[in-house]
Amino acid sequence: MTTLPTARIIDGAALAAQYRLALGDRVRAVRERGGRVRLDAVLVEAGDNSARVYAENQARTCGELGIEYRLHRITPDDESTAYDEIAGRVLLLSSDESVSAVMLHLPLPHGVDAYRVQRLIAPEKDVEGVNPANIGNIVYGRSSLAPCTALAVLKMLEWVWHTRRAEGDAVAGEGVPFLRGQRAVVVGAGDVVGKPIAVLLMRQEATVVSCNKWTAGLEDLTRSADIVIAAAGVPGLVTPEMVKPGAVVVDVGVTRIKGQDGKSRTVGDVAFAQTARVAGWISPVPGGVGPMTVAMLLHNVVEAAERRLGA
Amino acid sequence: MTTLPTARIIDGAALAAQYRLALGDRVRAVRERGGRVRLDAVLVEAGDNSARVYAENQARTCGELGIEYRLHRITPDDESTAYDEIAGRVLLLSSDESVSAVMLHLPLPHGVDAYRVQRLIAPEKDVEGVNPANIGNIVYGRSSLAPCTALAVLKMLEWVWHTRRAEGDAVAGEGVPFLRGQRAVVVGAGDVVGKPIAVLLMRQEATVVSCNKWTAGLEDLTRSADIVIAAAGVPGLVTPEMVKPGAVVVDVGVTRIKGQDGKSRTVGDVAFAQTARVAGWISPVPGGVGPMTVAMLLHNVVEAAERRLGA
Repeated sequence: MTTLPTARIIDGAALAAQYRLALGDRVRAVRERGGRVRLDAVLVEAGDNSARVYAENQARTCGELGIEYRLHRITPDDESTAYDEIAGRVLLLSSDESVSAVMLHLPLPHGVDAYRVQRLIAPEKDVEGVNPANIGNIVYGRSSLAPCTALAVLKMLEWVWHTRRAEGDAVAGEGVPFLRGQRAVVVGAGDVVGKPIAVLLMRQEATVVSCNKWTAGLEDLTRSADIVIAAAGVPGLVTPEMVKPGAVVVDVGVTRIKGQDGKSRTVGDVAFAQTARVAGWISPVPGGVGPMTVAMLLHNVVEAAERRLGA
Repeated sequence: MTTLPTARIIDGAALAAQYRLALGDRVRAVRERGGRVRLDAVLVEAGDNSARVYAENQARTCGELGIEYRLHRITPDDESTAYDEIAGRVLLLSSDESVSAVMLHLPLPHGVDAYRVQRLIAPEKDVEGVNPANIGNIVYGRSSLAPCTALAVLKMLEWVWHTRRAEGDAVAGEGVPFLRGQRAVVVGAGDVVGKPIAVLLMRQEATVVSCNKWTAGLEDLTRSADIVIAAAGVPGLVTPEMVKPGAVVVDVGVTRIKGQDGKSRTVGDVAFAQTARVAGWISPVPGGVGPMTVAMLLHNVVEAAERRLGA
């Protein structure tokens, strides 16, 4: 006998589709005011095919939303000049007044430090939120473009919040600001996801617990949480015993594993089927944070164009 | 009968004196290598006398360490031009190749947003660590100048760590990296202290709990902590019942209160006398984080000069 999950599913794919619709409207509004919405992406041709495929998908998605897409392909002459060529292009786009949104496809060639290049992207054009000034602005509560994955998690929590409010749930009652006083435990403290999410949650006046693989008493901590963010990259790390009944669980983990049938599939950090019987809200992998992260990049592109126009 | 405190005192004044001695040696070393150590401070003359007094003290302290001190006084013509004059000077110092360390005395005149000015300080010269890029670099684990108060707390914890190691305490045993796996609870999530400290502690692989005034179950959280950082600005907030026996307690609170005798005095967030009977290590107020914060500014000045020289 199978027990049905009791948790509500945080459907990242559906939510991303909603966001795209709303972004399309915002793009039209910018154009009607005489502005433009464009993404300038830098792609280094270095033998890695995945970035090129990603860029092609991106071009199509942008086209669907009415966002212009310009791909700047760089083919470095050799390893010794690669940094200069890539950094030079990024600086040029950063200072070009016709450019409002810049992103850098990874990976970069061997020997080129992505961080050194990313910090050259003008903060107000940095739609991936990877310039350290942008996470710093978030720490200090200033308007900023947030890292896309962390922003995706926040928007998913926002959706849960609005839904609970609409349904009369006291946790998200009228007059209760979003996340204020909620205890959020972030499992995993990586630079790309764990730490930026912790910072974003602090900004919302949540009680934030940042855990890593050295954390003692992890189970007690997560079991005390209203919100569990799993961002450790360890399949099956979060089990039902670690979750308070009714809690919100967002799974940021993405790991490719080979099943007993020999086929590869993508799994998250949460033992989904079992944990869904305890949690109140849960995001699946795939179909959770992933599609929302892609949508958040577009969100930042539109945001950058709007700010430029003074929206 | 008075019970004697069992906690060891984290003597910020004594520790700051040690730091100053070591900094004097580092200044000499920079000079011997043909470099220079200088602090360029901007002071806006705007009727507030406290900044001027602070600047005079600073000039004297710098002199004692062999650090050149240049004070740039600005007297804005009127309110409408104040931002331009201050920001222009900061930009000039940021781009001046002979300048290695810039700080901006507060307060600024009414209507001038300090944050907007601080973000113009070149990150590598920003010895107060107030440019958002610097806290961002800390999030991402890159070399950076940290905000002085947060850095002061970290250095005090480092001193406790080294002392424990020297005394054979297993918590800080050989091969155990500083703070890794320690549970640190930060009470208070302000932008100047609480949030930056939380970020610095995450960087050290601690389990970090960021609390604010909306936090439920604060007492249980602090009682589970190996390290409690009190940074709420609420006198007497942290009491002995909230502290695990033997824990490290650092008090960042600074509040002026009037005693029953009518005299003003400075108190911290921790009920010191009582909590010292439970904690293992505790910092007093005054004489704790305060003097270390002043020393950390000088530390950053020397650090900026050394990095410039390629130390």
